[in-house]
Amino acid sequence: MEGPREISFCLLKGGRRGPRLGMLRIGETEIPTPAFMPVGTRASVKTLGSEDLEEIGARLILANTYHLHLRPGADLIQRRGGLHRFMSWRGGILTDSGGFQVHSLADLRRILPDGVEFKSHLDGSSHFFTPEKVVDIQCALGSDIRMVLDVCTTYPADEQRAASDMETTLRWAERSLAHWTGAGCRERREGALFGIVQGGIYPALRRRCARELARLGFDGYALGGLAVGEPAQARSPAMDASLDELPTESPRYLMGVGTPADIIDAVGRGVDLFDCVLPSRNARKGTVFTWNGKMIIKNRAFAEDDSPIDPACGCAACRRYSRAYIRHLFQVGEYLAGRLATIHSLAFYQQLTERIRQAIAADRFEAFAAETLERV
Amino acid sequence: MEGPREISFCLLKGGRRGPRLGMLRIGETEIPTPAFMPVGTRASVKTLGSEDLEEIGARLILANTYHLHLRPGADLIQRRGGLHRFMSWRGGILTDSGGFQVHSLADLRRILPDGVEFKSHLDGSSHFFTPEKVVDIQCALGSDIRMVLDVCTTYPADEQRAASDMETTLRWAERSLAHWTGAGCRERREGALFGIVQGGIYPALRRRCARELARLGFDGYALGGLAVGEPAQARSPAMDASLDELPTESPRYLMGVGTPADIIDAVGRGVDLFDCVLPSRNARKGTVFTWNGKMIIKNRAFAEDDSPIDPACGCAACRRYSRAYIRHLFQVGEYLAGRLATIHSLAFYQQLTERIRQAIAADRFEAFAAETLERV
Repeated sequence: MEGPREISFCLLKGGRRGPRLGMLRIGETEIPTPAFMPVGTRASVKTLGSEDLEEIGARLILANTYHLHLRPGADLIQRRGGLHRFMSWRGGILTDSGGFQVHSLADLRRILPDGVEFKSHLDGSSHFFTPEKVVDIQCALGSDIRMVLDVCTTYPADEQRAASDMETTLRWAERSLAHWTGAGCRERREGALFGIVQGGIYPALRRRCARELARLGFDGYALGGLAVGEPAQARSPAMDASLDELPTESPRYLMGVGTPADIIDAVGRGVDLFDCVLPSRNARKGTVFTWNGKMIIKNRAFAEDDSPIDPACGCAACRRYSRAYIRHLFQVGEYLAGRLATIHSLAFYQQLTERIRQAIAADRFEAFAAETLERV
Repeated sequence: MEGPREISFCLLKGGRRGPRLGMLRIGETEIPTPAFMPVGTRASVKTLGSEDLEEIGARLILANTYHLHLRPGADLIQRRGGLHRFMSWRGGILTDSGGFQVHSLADLRRILPDGVEFKSHLDGSSHFFTPEKVVDIQCALGSDIRMVLDVCTTYPADEQRAASDMETTLRWAERSLAHWTGAGCRERREGALFGIVQGGIYPALRRRCARELARLGFDGYALGGLAVGEPAQARSPAMDASLDELPTESPRYLMGVGTPADIIDAVGRGVDLFDCVLPSRNARKGTVFTWNGKMIIKNRAFAEDDSPIDPACGCAACRRYSRAYIRHLFQVGEYLAGRLATIHSLAFYQQLTERIRQAIAADRFEAFAAETLERV
C-alpha cells in the first residue's frame, strides 16, 4: 500500500450557508474547493489516462466501490498496493459506497435491516453489502475519502418511505463509523469517512438526518438522493435544510450533480464538492460544454469550422484540433472523438470551479452566477 | 493549403537487393528507412491523437483515399488546408489509392477498362474511380506521397487473371503519371507519386510490371497484392522478382505488411517502407507485441502482474501502467485499454525498425534477424 495520507479540510471563507472557499488536503495534494471530481467508475475516467487528468488539472477523482468490488475485486487492488498505485494516480480518490449503484439495480436488490442483498449486473451472482463490509472494501481499495453505505430514496417517494430509508441510513451510518473507528483505519490516520444525508424531498427528514450525522461526527458530509428526477423547487429546500444542520467546518459534497447551472446554484447554498458523469458521458456522445452553452460538436454546422471548440480554452483538444476535425471523428465513429471531447468538457468543469472560486474570493459570486447562468 | 513540401529519398547503404538504409525527407521531416507507417485510415490512428504519434516517434503515417473520399470528402479537407492541417500532423502522410479497399468490396465493385465502379460500403451510393480522379483526390487531400490506382490481384488467381490485372495496373499507372505530371502538382514540386507492382505470385509478371513502371519513372514503387493470403514460399519469389527490376535509388514500399517477422524478411530482401493495421488492430483486441513475442495482455495470467508490458520499453504506457491495470481495463471494456495497448505496440514497431537500421548500419543485419526471429 501507499503510505497512509493525512486528510484535512480548512474552511477559508464563508459559513454554514452561502458560497464558501475551502482547502481540502489529501497528503501532498491541495484541492481548493468548490471542486469538481471527474468520475472514474472502474478505475479509469473513460477515454483518459492519469496523465490526461493531471494535464486537465483534476486533483480529486471518484471511483466506484460496487463496480470495483465486482471487477477486479478490492482484494486484488489491495494486493496491487491500492487504487492509487493500480491506476497510477497521485491525486486524491473518493470512493462512493455503491449504495446508489445497488439502489439502481431495482429488481436485483433487496434492502434488509442489516444491509442490502443484490445480484451482480454482470453475472447474476448474489452479494450482500453490510455497512461494515462496505467500509472494509473501501479500506482495501485504499481510497482517500470513503462513503458510508446508505439507502438512496427514489423520486417520487412518499414521506413514510423517505423516513424509513433515512432511518436505515442513520443506523447504517452509526454502524459504519463504529466499524471504521475500530477497524484500524482511523488509528493509521488513513482516509476519511463521509456520512450521507438522505430524507428525499422532505426538509424535516433532511434536517433530522443531517443533525444526527453531525452528532455522530464524520470527516465530511454528502447530500445523497438528490438529482434523481425531482424538480428544482423540491431539491432546493431539501438541500438548504440539510446544509443548515451540518457542521460549518466540514466539507459538504453534493453527490452526482450536475450541470454548470446546478453546480453554481449549489455553491451558492454552501456546497464544496461535486461529481457527475454528465460532462464525460455527454462528451462521448458528441455534446461538449462551453462558456456559451452546450455545443453539439457532431452537428453538420461544424463540418467546415476551423476554430477549436473554444478559442479561449487552453485544453489539449482546443490547443490543437478544430471543430471540423472533431466533428469528422464523431461522424466516422473514431475513438479519438470521445477522447478529445472528454478532455475539453472536463477541462471546462475545472475552469468553471476555478472561476467560481475566484468570484467567491473577490466577493462577486452573485454577479458571476448571474452572468454565467445566462450563458451556460 | 500548407505550402508544398519537397520530397527526396537518398539511399545511404545497400543496393538493389539486400538490406538498405535510406533517408526519406518530406519537407523538414527526416524519415530514416527502413520505416514503418502507423495506419490512420480515416485521418486518425485509432485511439491516438497526433501528439501521441509524435511521442511514439512516428514520422510518416498512412491515410486512406477511399475512406476520406466518402467521409468527409477530399474537397472538405482541401478547404481545411489539407490533411496535415486537418488532423494537426506535421510529419509525412502517404495516402493509398483506395485500390485495395475498392477491391475488397467484392460484389460492390466492377473493374472496367477506364477505372473501377463501386458502391459505397456506407450507403450504397455509386462511385467511379479513374486513375486521374484518384490522383486528383490525393492532390486535394494534400498528402505527401500518393499512390496510383491499381488492380489488386486476389489470391488464389490463375496466371491469366494476374496478367490481365497487371496489364490494367500498368495502363492505369501510365495514365496516372501523365495526369499528375500535367495536373500542376509536379510543377509545384508538391508531393510524390508511387507506382504499384502487381502480378500476383508470378515472378515473370512481377518482373514485367516492375520493369515497365521503372521505365515510366515514379518517385517510388510499392509492392501490392502481397500478404493477401498467399504462402510465404509464393510471396518471396514474387517480391524478389519485383525488387530486381526496380531502380536502386528509389524507395520501395511493401503495402500492408506485416508481422515483425514479415518486416525483417522483407528488409532483408531490399524493402524500405511498410504499413500495417496489425499492431494497432491487435492491440485494440488485447494482444500486444514485445521483444519476447506476442502477449495476450487481457489474459488472466496478467491479473496480478505489476510489471509494465515491457520493462525495457520507454513508451507512455510502459512508463506508467502495469499489466494488471491494462488487463483490468480490457476485462471491463474501458476505452483506455485499447489506447494504452496501441501506444505500446506502435512504439514497439518504431523500436523494431530502429533496431533494424542500427543492425544494418553495424553490418550485422543477418545476425540481428536470426536472433530476433527466434524471439518475436
